Amino acid sequence: MNRLADEFLVKTAPNPDLWLSSVDALMLDLVKDQEQSKNTISSLAHEAAAYHLQLGGHRIRARLALAACASLGVNETNAIALAAAVELLHNASLVHDDLQDEDLIRRGSKAVWAQFGSNVAICTGDLMLSAAYAAIAQTQCYALIPELLKQMHAKVSYAIKGQCSDLLLDSKTLNLKTYEDIAFSKSGALLSLPIELALIAGGKKEWITQARQAADDFAVAYQIYDDIEDFEKDSSGDCIHHANILLVLQSDPSGMNSYQAALDLGLLKLEQATNACNHLPMNSGYLLAELAQKLSHQLKATTPISSDIARQ
Amino acid sequence: MNRLADEFLVKTAPNPDLWLSSVDALMLDLVKDQEQSKNTISSLAHEAAAYHLQLGGHRIRARLALAACASLGVNETNAIALAAAVELLHNASLVHDDLQDEDLIRRGSKAVWAQFGSNVAICTGDLMLSAAYAAIAQTQCYALIPELLKQMHAKVSYAIKGQCSDLLLDSKTLNLKTYEDIAFSKSGALLSLPIELALIAGGKKEWITQARQAADDFAVAYQIYDDIEDFEKDSSGDCIHHANILLVLQSDPSGMNSYQAALDLGLLKLEQATNACNHLPMNSGYLLAELAQKLSHQLKATTPISSDIARQ
Repeated sequence: MNRLADEFLVKTAPNPDLWLSSVDALMLDLVKDQEQSKNTISSLAHEAAAYHLQLGGHRIRARLALAACASLGVNETNAIALAAAVELLHNASLVHDDLQDEDLIRRGSKAVWAQFGSNVAICTGDLMLSAAYAAIAQTQCYALIPELLKQMHAKVSYAIKGQCSDLLLDSKTLNLKTYEDIAFSKSGALLSLPIELALIAGGKKEWITQARQAADDFAVAYQIYDDIEDFEKDSSGDCIHHANILLVLQSDPSGMNSYQAALDLGLLKLEQATNACNHLPMNSGYLLAELAQKLSHQLKATTPISSDIARQ
Repeated sequence: MNRLADEFLVKTAPNPDLWLSSVDALMLDLVKDQEQSKNTISSLAHEAAAYHLQLGGHRIRARLALAACASLGVNETNAIALAAAVELLHNASLVHDDLQDEDLIRRGSKAVWAQFGSNVAICTGDLMLSAAYAAIAQTQCYALIPELLKQMHAKVSYAIKGQCSDLLLDSKTLNLKTYEDIAFSKSGALLSLPIELALIAGGKKEWITQARQAADDFAVAYQIYDDIEDFEKDSSGDCIHHANILLVLQSDPSGMNSYQAALDLGLLKLEQATNACNHLPMNSGYLLAELAQKLSHQLKATTPISSDIARQ
């Protein structure tokens, strides 16, 4: 397809954010108790899943899928199904992560495990993970479904690897390579998946590696931003298992300023992510490029941490 | 199809147990860490999933799927994929159930949570649940995949409802109707699914309700058998949340012998299950009918518990 056709398609693409309410409706429908009339028992897991989804959130992964689908000419029904699938996967992981990390608060309210108990939280995450795959049944591209399923499982498997590594981390021996590998798997996997599924549905799967590159770089930069913001908490000793980039870079023997090094690395990653996004076909990575731009500003606006403080 | 053709097909069907080793190989492949070469971090969840699968088990659900597929003329590739899907779902539920119930031993070895820790067990169950859906990507019946996915999610959702109810049960107010509803959802759902998926793949989905009826009745009978065997443990007070049928029937004001009543109910359910199986098309329920027959003998061979003891 030539450049002109590309631009025509992009300009006439619908505003994908208009589809977001349909994504939310589909997600809620997929975690509903379908056996209510036939069975006397009640299910707290179904209630907890609806509770969690209704806490809101930015729906970044759903929006990445919708934006890429709209750019690639994937139709509304398919776009909504793919967006619901990735957003359900992400939220399933949040429900289980909060339990594992003992994080009490999610989106300003009690996390599922804190509100409903640990056992219900396990069931709730399971329900949402299963619902994510059921969302794929709503797509109309039958011949592509096997590929969509395989890609989803590959990313879930990779994200689980990241979560496990993060939970079992020995922060004393952590180096930059492992730090990046954890960010790739724990965050990059489910940030890349929305664009990857859209590329498969749009018949452009040869670009998957490029999408993954963009999401991986973005994920590392996001983790760096998060670490700079959380530095005080992470270095206080309350959070011994957490690997903060400033603590990782402190172990560098060159004695460089770890805040400046982290900032430079984050900005470099975002530049790389933006480049990779801009090379994706039919502008399908435009939303991730926008998010990278925004994160770049946020990174630059962080309060510098002096070497002395970072070395405490 | 006339009766003769039915019998011809059944007699020439392959021995489905010969496919079991391929099911095991597929399951192990689907929980393998595919990112090993690209990523320095290791994943205990993948190791734990292989550990759990290699503990063995009867593979009842895989065998039910294989038997039904062979009877219905579903080809080997599809049969193996469907069998792996249901067996992975069942094993995912075991990994999470053992953690929730704090059961230390599974198949004579340490349960995953006892061997690898609670957090890894959560990740392991998630990995296996995701792998179950990835197994569906191995089928060759593309147009039927949406229906297979929907049916899987419906049963996972129902099984989760059963697990939640069981965990949160108030055994004091439990009646026979709720007891049966929990058995339907907690056990019946994943016993019915193998035959249901085979019926969908074999183009006979109009028989799904019949398959469900058979599996539900079998599930209640199995639960009754289990309860009679476990009566001493369940009534000792160590297990206050467990709803044993003998304790449920004790609350019946007629003062009948609860062991005899449980036995009669179990045998009736097995008779109903066998009848329902025998009406399934192309003898696709033959293995469940055989299991019902076997369970009937086991039930009759249980040691009677006198009313006095059951009323302690």
